[in-house]
Amino acid sequence: MNYGVRREDLLSAAKAKGADCVLVASPVNVHYLTGLRTSNGALIVASQATVLVTDARYLPKAREVCPEIPLELGRDVDAVLGPRIAEFGSGRVLFEDHVLTVERYRGLKAAAPRAEFIPGERIVEGLRRVKSEEEIDLLRRACSISDQALADVLGQLRPGLSERWIAQALTAAMFEHGAHGLAFEPIVAAGPNGASPHHAPGDRPVTRGDLVTMDFGASYGGYHADMTRTVALGSPSAWQRDIYALVAEAQRTGISHARPDTDVRDVDASARNMITSAGYGEFFPHGFGHGVGLEIQEWPMLGYGRTGKLMDRVPITAEPGVYLTGRGGVRIEDTFVVRADGPELLTTTTKDLLVL
Amino acid sequence: MNYGVRREDLLSAAKAKGADCVLVASPVNVHYLTGLRTSNGALIVASQATVLVTDARYLPKAREVCPEIPLELGRDVDAVLGPRIAEFGSGRVLFEDHVLTVERYRGLKAAAPRAEFIPGERIVEGLRRVKSEEEIDLLRRACSISDQALADVLGQLRPGLSERWIAQALTAAMFEHGAHGLAFEPIVAAGPNGASPHHAPGDRPVTRGDLVTMDFGASYGGYHADMTRTVALGSPSAWQRDIYALVAEAQRTGISHARPDTDVRDVDASARNMITSAGYGEFFPHGFGHGVGLEIQEWPMLGYGRTGKLMDRVPITAEPGVYLTGRGGVRIEDTFVVRADGPELLTTTTKDLLVL
Repeated sequence: MNYGVRREDLLSAAKAKGADCVLVASPVNVHYLTGLRTSNGALIVASQATVLVTDARYLPKAREVCPEIPLELGRDVDAVLGPRIAEFGSGRVLFEDHVLTVERYRGLKAAAPRAEFIPGERIVEGLRRVKSEEEIDLLRRACSISDQALADVLGQLRPGLSERWIAQALTAAMFEHGAHGLAFEPIVAAGPNGASPHHAPGDRPVTRGDLVTMDFGASYGGYHADMTRTVALGSPSAWQRDIYALVAEAQRTGISHARPDTDVRDVDASARNMITSAGYGEFFPHGFGHGVGLEIQEWPMLGYGRTGKLMDRVPITAEPGVYLTGRGGVRIEDTFVVRADGPELLTTTTKDLLVL
Repeated sequence: MNYGVRREDLLSAAKAKGADCVLVASPVNVHYLTGLRTSNGALIVASQATVLVTDARYLPKAREVCPEIPLELGRDVDAVLGPRIAEFGSGRVLFEDHVLTVERYRGLKAAAPRAEFIPGERIVEGLRRVKSEEEIDLLRRACSISDQALADVLGQLRPGLSERWIAQALTAAMFEHGAHGLAFEPIVAAGPNGASPHHAPGDRPVTRGDLVTMDFGASYGGYHADMTRTVALGSPSAWQRDIYALVAEAQRTGISHARPDTDVRDVDASARNMITSAGYGEFFPHGFGHGVGLEIQEWPMLGYGRTGKLMDRVPITAEPGVYLTGRGGVRIEDTFVVRADGPELLTTTTKDLLVL
């Protein structure tokens, strides 16, 4: 990854907003701009200089991954940042108002009283939307690990196993196939629990007649996979087949609409209109999808009234669902890359209804 | 867990600060006060009423775990919160200034212009420090799972395995023993990598002559275990034995000082002085420990100049370490409960130097 170029791009974008100094406080954004993963760090990118502030625990790693960036150490990162902002930020300082808490902001303003702090409007998140092929390779690997893990677990799925067992089997299989971490704790929801989109796996054994929804993903090299499949245990009933077919068709439609220069609102609408026309609109209570990368959910968001154009090389998820209280639900989700020559699916497990 | 009592305690504490309304925005604190785990929710606890705001994805779970709390739904939680604060918060509204971002605060203030917002001084975190026996049972279970996982992996540890393999084996073993999740992604650092307290496991194979540090923990029922052991591969050299013995002695000393009414500063100092006297003070660059519960790191913090009295039933970690750049490091960590009749260790794996 060319972190130096990313920092230059950031500074150019900041200058276009009339600032000559950016304070980056989000750990993910610090990672994106330096290569260093730290739970306690911040970065100042200014015309005069770049300074990375973190604590002594991260010193060896920082020396290894970003030896070119001047480093200052302090357990209380803000106590080091304040004077630096006062030094570099004599003018306008772009800051991450969606990250900095009221408490931290109060302290930093007091330490740099002459700086004018301007809300950063998620400037780094904007830069992060379009991925390099190197980033997409890591996402592809995370997705492939997730697909392989699902294949393993589908081979073991049978009535009597608990949701929690299935979640743990998915976890173990992802690590076995080389995951560096979990993108998030797997959701496994069977039978009536499937009506809850974010159900936490419990001790209920899965039963013949259940739809079983599995939403999970591996992380690899810092990048996150996100996929969901819903399978039937035993021959599915008519309503189960109907909502499965509807969600699958809505997912296909949304994916086919996701092209560069299409508005995210239109992608969400293409899938949502189909579900609404079938009479299930109120049972699809979330967005069509979201960007995915160094965070499991990042820009762009698709749904919730968001607008904005898609671009080439933007990885997003496609995850429509229908949830029927007391009965169950279906969600089908892929991670894919928006490309000029058509979407590239990174998760590739079949979306035919599997009957186990 | 008696969530209603927790909300009453919060309101009493808020009234003592002159407020009659508390806005809780931290997801962990919402969980602590309602039982609901949501990534998108907030709670208003006021004299007149309590209101939980979350989005439709969490509706089924909210109805199940906290049916007694009036619920309002909205994908944009703050758009619902604002008018409610305006309604209940005619006077002073305590808010979590360490959680709310500058962006959210700006929006909420605009929606409730007559409310006076007062920094909450981590009021819920303060209540969370002392645990109930029910909470300690969950922590004990998380710790026991972690101990069992380590026993499994110690049986397999041999030269040639990579740090990453060991981290994955610890992960798999924790899930096998019933973990609900990982408290954090395991740290495995061998040989020179052990000099980095927060090393991310890599592909380097462990080698005879290495010290191998493993820092990991399971989560169970929302509670987090945190433990570290350092083992030797092959007969340890003199410097390895020396720093191991020093760290082990410092850890014992710190634990023995951790009693109700002792200041956290004195606990940290009791261990740190020992390491400093031996000439290694500069190589122990972090605190002695931290509180542990619904978060892997929570109040109280031990070290970094923090002060404050310990209390009965406060679970904390004890994790001194010595890190020698280019050579390696040792850290030994337990999770234990401060009790009137002496510390109760929740992680129980031996702290004798294991030579594998």
